[in-house]
Amino acid sequence: MNATHIGLVAGVLTSMAVVPQVVRTWRTKQARDLSIWQPLLLVAGMLLWFVYGVMIEDLPLIAANLFSLACYVLLIGMKLAYDRKP
Amino acid sequence: MNATHIGLVAGVLTSMAVVPQVVRTWRTKQARDLSIWQPLLLVAGMLLWFVYGVMIEDLPLIAANLFSLACYVLLIGMKLAYDRKP
Repeated sequence: MNATHIGLVAGVLTSMAVVPQVVRTWRTKQARDLSIWQPLLLVAGMLLWFVYGVMIEDLPLIAANLFSLACYVLLIGMKLAYDRKP
Repeated sequence: MNATHIGLVAGVLTSMAVVPQVVRTWRTKQARDLSIWQPLLLVAGMLLWFVYGVMIEDLPLIAANLFSLACYVLLIGMKLAYDRKP
């Protein structure tokens, strides 16, 4: 297992990490314990990672960040929707 | 602003993103809406990013991942502690 393999597995793990949170929030319809700033900062950061990936033409970087971006945008939408409930 | 600058800003944003969540969980002592799997997967992924950073001798990668690792370990500890409360 060389460095590139380790980097790829690392990227898959950190990209997939948001999925259980999206599933949990979707199921429970509860998001009060979540900070809105975490997904907001991550979306801002990942947009830049995506731009960086395009600039250095690195496909794994582009793909991983697009996927996570979509998940975090979804999480922000759910947080805003569910916190409005009484 | 070249690609490296964009990558550095991206890294700072995504590394710092966990801080508001740690602060919110610490203040509210509530973590029920958090999925334990998100920090667990991130810790596993970031350990590998750290190993990858050491292998390719990339200091920003090492530093950013060590910082985030510490934050997520703290978050896991708080989640386990606060969820045990009645």
